[in-house]
Formats: sequence, structure tokens, C-alpha cells
Amino acid sequence: MKIKIERIEENFARVLEHSSLENGIQRFSYSVEDLAVRAILLEQLEELGLEIRLDGVGNLFASYNPLESNKRPILIGSHIDTVPDGGKFDGLTGVLCSLEVIQTMIDEQIQPQIPIVFVVFAEEEGSNFGTTMLGSKYWKGQLNEEDLNVLKNKDGRTALSVIQEAGFDPSNRECSFTSMNPAAMIELHVEQGGILEEKNLDIGVVTKIIGMNSYEITIHGTSNHAGSTPMHLRKDPLLPAAELILYVESLPNTYGSDLAVATVGKILAKPNGSNVISSEVSFTVDIRDTSKLGIESMSLALQRKVGELCKPKAFDYQIELVGKSDPVALSSSIIQVMESRLKLENIPYHKMPSGAVHDCAILADAIDVGMIFLPSKGGISHSPDEYTSMEAIEQGAQLLFDCVKELAG
Amino acid sequence: MKIKIERIEENFARVLEHSSLENGIQRFSYSVEDLAVRAILLEQLEELGLEIRLDGVGNLFASYNPLESNKRPILIGSHIDTVPDGGKFDGLTGVLCSLEVIQTMIDEQIQPQIPIVFVVFAEEEGSNFGTTMLGSKYWKGQLNEEDLNVLKNKDGRTALSVIQEAGFDPSNRECSFTSMNPAAMIELHVEQGGILEEKNLDIGVVTKIIGMNSYEITIHGTSNHAGSTPMHLRKDPLLPAAELILYVESLPNTYGSDLAVATVGKILAKPNGSNVISSEVSFTVDIRDTSKLGIESMSLALQRKVGELCKPKAFDYQIELVGKSDPVALSSSIIQVMESRLKLENIPYHKMPSGAVHDCAILADAIDVGMIFLPSKGGISHSPDEYTSMEAIEQGAQLLFDCVKELAG
Repeated sequence: MKIKIERIEENFARVLEHSSLENGIQRFSYSVEDLAVRAILLEQLEELGLEIRLDGVGNLFASYNPLESNKRPILIGSHIDTVPDGGKFDGLTGVLCSLEVIQTMIDEQIQPQIPIVFVVFAEEEGSNFGTTMLGSKYWKGQLNEEDLNVLKNKDGRTALSVIQEAGFDPSNRECSFTSMNPAAMIELHVEQGGILEEKNLDIGVVTKIIGMNSYEITIHGTSNHAGSTPMHLRKDPLLPAAELILYVESLPNTYGSDLAVATVGKILAKPNGSNVISSEVSFTVDIRDTSKLGIESMSLALQRKVGELCKPKAFDYQIELVGKSDPVALSSSIIQVMESRLKLENIPYHKMPSGAVHDCAILADAIDVGMIFLPSKGGISHSPDEYTSMEAIEQGAQLLFDCVKELAG
Repeated sequence: MKIKIERIEENFARVLEHSSLENGIQRFSYSVEDLAVRAILLEQLEELGLEIRLDGVGNLFASYNPLESNKRPILIGSHIDTVPDGGKFDGLTGVLCSLEVIQTMIDEQIQPQIPIVFVVFAEEEGSNFGTTMLGSKYWKGQLNEEDLNVLKNKDGRTALSVIQEAGFDPSNRECSFTSMNPAAMIELHVEQGGILEEKNLDIGVVTKIIGMNSYEITIHGTSNHAGSTPMHLRKDPLLPAAELILYVESLPNTYGSDLAVATVGKILAKPNGSNVISSEVSFTVDIRDTSKLGIESMSLALQRKVGELCKPKAFDYQIELVGKSDPVALSSSIIQVMESRLKLENIPYHKMPSGAVHDCAILADAIDVGMIFLPSKGGISHSPDEYTSMEAIEQGAQLLFDCVKELAG
């Protein structure tokens, strides 16, 4: 039983008709583009006769076979929202492959023992309110109405009011993680890194979601005129910041596992004038590893180094932990099912951690979770240039179908 | 004959009544605050019976003794505009001391042989249109109407239209440097550095305006997800940028004179997200020295280092020279007059270059120019925290008076 890649391709085309591609896609949750793509999906889900539900923030569930309390369903799906100037494949690939899995099941008149629930989580990228995986966190019960009333978009509007205006009622908890009581979720997603391409493979079997500590560091110096302040009278906070940027790059190799990464992605100097010595410099440090120990070792080394570098000239500084997530192990039984299918079909693959956090990771402390990765050309992600081949998508969708079929009996 | 510091203090108070002091002063040329301070000055200039002229961009001239073609005047003055979040002393100190010099001359019924022209140059700080010393450059003939039609403020409005709306006509060249044909200018200004404070002195005699090369460097890398991109597959442009920031700090000591300085004051990472490896990093390098050789040696070393650092990972880069001014020697005869006065009065002083460029430097290739510096507390400048004591201001104003009296015969 083969999934039909032509149908996935057609759906990509249909969705992208509603996306402004020039400077990348701006398909934020609750936007006009988001609504247009939801309409395309809903039309097909209705044609397939699925049982459709929307929860209080617009997470979309469509069940093949009715949800019954004694049959714990399997979730398949991902998200359709993008980052600003996003690409065509992040999120959408998993959604269209999951839809194809259900279409193939119906075509082939497969009657699973348990319901298969197609899911589209809202606001995964955090493009509206700065909080990633907002939809899955809400559904799981990690975010409530009050939290949504605190989060704001760029225009200063609360998440609560934007979501209510889109026609959803966050106080309505009828359709929750607890009430659906799923047994498992499998998410197919593009890798967003270059490992599979480097290994020339089309399939990644994800073993873990790596954990993260995210810091914001601010170093305070003394602003002054760049022309009239002699070098020996300066207290320029950009200098310890530059040393730290270089030190951060050395952290994974010294203190982390082979898979550890550390990044300074954001830097802001004040007042940021070409002829002014900075008064303060802020920058972020994003530290990730597959083990808690690795994350903690790198974090400690970072904190020690900030102190060391700021001491000689007595720079004031702050280190704030602004984000934290522990590494999550994915389901060994789902990994086993994936591996046996791949071996049976003689498809080479790579077992690997995910460096990014995904919707399914939010559920992984409570249910079995599996992830299939597809290669990202050049490792490029969150960019109009991201690309994943239809050949890889076909193999991924087929693996998803085979796993769901096996797990659903 | 003594200047009256109380009168200068009163004028400071009068001006600062019209300044919002909370987050620093925002007295940009052509703003409401600028007009209010001009009104205060004009009232006093009229009371003193001076001959007042405004040129095509609002530079203000007030002559004690009528301007006559056979008597080349001496200019004294500075500017009243501030940087964003500026302080109380930059510019304004020189303006109020110069006004006091003329008031004292009138009080003392001194009749100079040549006209003394009080001047307030417009738009010195470049706060509106990003071009510093716009007023003096226009007056000197270095900027014309066409240039003003290219320069734009933050709202996209041209300098030409803003200046016209303020009631000036840049095409009117009746009052120009050529027509006034001055013999000299003396500008009193706060040091904007910490040298006088370090030496515990109240007076600096400026010998040179140091020259500058200002660069904008952009390094292009590959943007990617900070979680899912292994360290060895990265091309992060922030890393060579950080090495260059540290290298720039070493340039003056290695290639410049004792007075050389080099600064990275502005840095912009794209897309500047905490979980994204940068696609490109731009930063400025401001290199200054008292000799052309020093500036050129540092500039060459910088360019060589950028190439060296970008080579291993084949980073693309651009180096653009965005600003350039040669070192300017100030008038040795004016310096001599200042020094003999200071020695006569037994006032300790320091001969020093100016690390910042000032309005008077624009005129220094054509006429005799002198500068008096007063100490900036903590070397702080372009900040609400800048401070110069009234004791220093009194000594500075007196020196200015004595020099003008001697030079004007």
C-alpha cells in the first residue's frame, strides 16, 4: 500500500497559491493566509468524512474513526504557521504527509483498531506572541487563559484578544489533551539542519529532543566619544562581549557531547553609534545538548567566564536565564517500529537527536512520541530558501503510513 | 576686565528651562526646543544692539561692530543642537561663553579694531540628517542645495524641505563664508574625553583636530537554526566579527601614535534572533590619529586582518569607507596668544589634540582657528550625565575674552 506523492504535491501547490512567496511566507496563525490554508484543509477533511474538532486556541483535530473513550488514539500532524519570511516546508510537510496517510488508509479501506487523529497545532513558531509551541502547550494544559492574557503581539494586543477575535474561546476546555487521552504522537518534520544531507540520507529517526538553556547577558560599560576618549580611559563593554562570543563557540567541544551546540544569535549595543563607545551590550547565548549534564557544564563554564572577563575593568553585568527545556527521550517502541520498517524496505537512515523543539516534544513526558526527519538542503531553515525534495517527502510519508498502520493494528 | 560667570549661569538656567531633561536633551536643529533657545539668544543679541544675520540654513551671526569689507572679523561661538538624549554642556557652553565675551566687551566699552562675530552653527551633531557639522559645511560652501535634497531624516523628509519649512532658504547665499571673509575663529568647547580630568586641569589648548577614517564592514555567513546545526557545519559571521572587534582595540597601540584611537561602536546582526545563526553581521570601525600616517597604517592593518579572518571559511565581506577627514593643525599664532595669557595668569593648562571634529575645524584650511577645551567629568559626553564645572567655564570664558581682545587689537 503506497501513499501518493502526486496528491501531496498537489496539496503543496494548492496551499502555496495562498502564500506570498516573494520575501518568504508570512503565514502566522490567525492571519488571512492561515485561514486560507485552514479552509483548504477543512474542505478535504470534510470530504474524507472525518470527525473535526477545534479547541480553544484553534488547534485542529480530525479523527479517522470516531473518538471513543476506551480507544486511545494516535496523533499525526504538525503545524502550518511560519516564522517571518519563512519557507515552504517547515511544518507544512508534516501536515500534508499526515493528511496523505489518512487519505491512503481510506482509499485502501484500512480500518484501524484505534482512532487516527490528524492534528494541526496553532502558533508553533511563536511569530505572533513570542512563545513557541503555544498551541500544543495550551492543549496539553501548560498554558491557560491568564497566560494568554499576558502574552502580547507587536501591536501590544494580547494573545487572548487576538485568539478570541479569530473566533476561538480559550476558556472552553472541551477538547483537551486529557479528554482525548491519546496513546502516541508521530510527527514528521524537516530536519532544519545539515546532518542528513551531509550523510546523503533521506530519512532521520529522531531519538531525542535536545534540551536548552537560553541566556541573555548584559554588560555595562561607560559610553563616551570615540574620538576624544584615549584607549586607556575606556570601559567598552563590547570587548568582553566579543571575547565571550568567541568563548561560546568553544563551549560544546570543551564541555558538551558530540551533539552539543552553543550560539550567540542576537546582539544589541547601546547607543549603537559609529562614533560612540557603547554604554552597554546585550547578547543571547543559546546552549543545547542531548544530556542535562552537558547543558549544565556548558552553562556553568559560561557563567564563570563572564565573571572572569568582567572582573579586571569591573564591568557590571547581568546573566538571565530566559529559556530552559530539558532533553526529552522519544519512545523506544516507536523508534523500533520505524527501524524495522526501514530495514525491511532496505532504506538507509540515521538515528539522530532533534536540535529544535517541536509540538510533539510537549507531549513526550506523558505519551509515546516518535519523529521522522527529512533532509533540509544546505541545512537551511526558517528561510525562503529552505528545500526538501519530493523524493524524501515520499519516503517520509510512506514510513509514517507504515508505522501508523502497524501501531494502530 | 572680568567676564561675569553669574550671567553665564543665568543663561544656562534660562536655556534649560526649555529643555526636557528627564532622559537627556533632544534639542535638534529646527525643533521647537531649538527655536525656543534661539528666541532667548536673539532677544539678548538685539538688546546688545548687534547686527544679526541668518544664512540659508539658519546659521546665526551677530556682529559687534558692523561688518565692513576691509575689516576681516573674528568668529566666536559653537552650536546649540544636541545628540539624542544629549547633555547640558556640549555646544551650549561655547555659545554662552561667547555671548558673555561680547557682553563684557560692551560693558567695558571696548571698541575692537575689527568686528567680533558671535556665531551659532546649525545641525552640528547630525541628529536630524546623519551629517555632522551640516551648518558650518553649508556656510563654508562644502554642501549645497542639491546635497540637502539628498540627505533625509528618519521620517524620510529631505534636509532641504525641513530647512525650508523652518523658514530658511538654502538657495540664498547672501551671508556666506566668502562674503563675510573672516580672519579667524575661536571655539570654546567641552573636551568630551577624560584627559583634562585625569591631569586635574581646567584648560586645554587644542593644537590639532585629529583625522579619521570611518569604515562599515559587513561579513556574510549562512543563517541556520541554532539548535539543529552542528558546530562543524556552521558559517557564523559573528565569529570573525568578534575577532575583529578585539583586533580593532589593539590597532592604536600597534600602528598609531600615543593619541590614536580605534572603536567599534555600532554592530548589527541579521536576523538577530536568539535561536538563529546570523546570516550577516555589519559593524563600524572608527579610526583616528593626529597623523595621516597613523590613520593609514591602522586602516591597512584592519583591511589585511579582515581578509585573513574571512579566508579560512570563505566568508564574503565588504569594507566600505564611509567617512574620512584629515588631521588639521590649528593656528600656531592663536595657540601662542592663549599660552602667553595662561602663563601671565599662572593658569596651568594642557596642550592637546581634539579627538572630535568641531565646526571650527571646517574653516581651518582657510583661516586661523583656535580651540579652548574645558574638562568633561569622567570623560562623559553625548549623555545626560555630562558635566563641566562653572569654575572651569569661568576660566574658559575669561581666556576666550582675553584672546579675542588681544587679537582684535
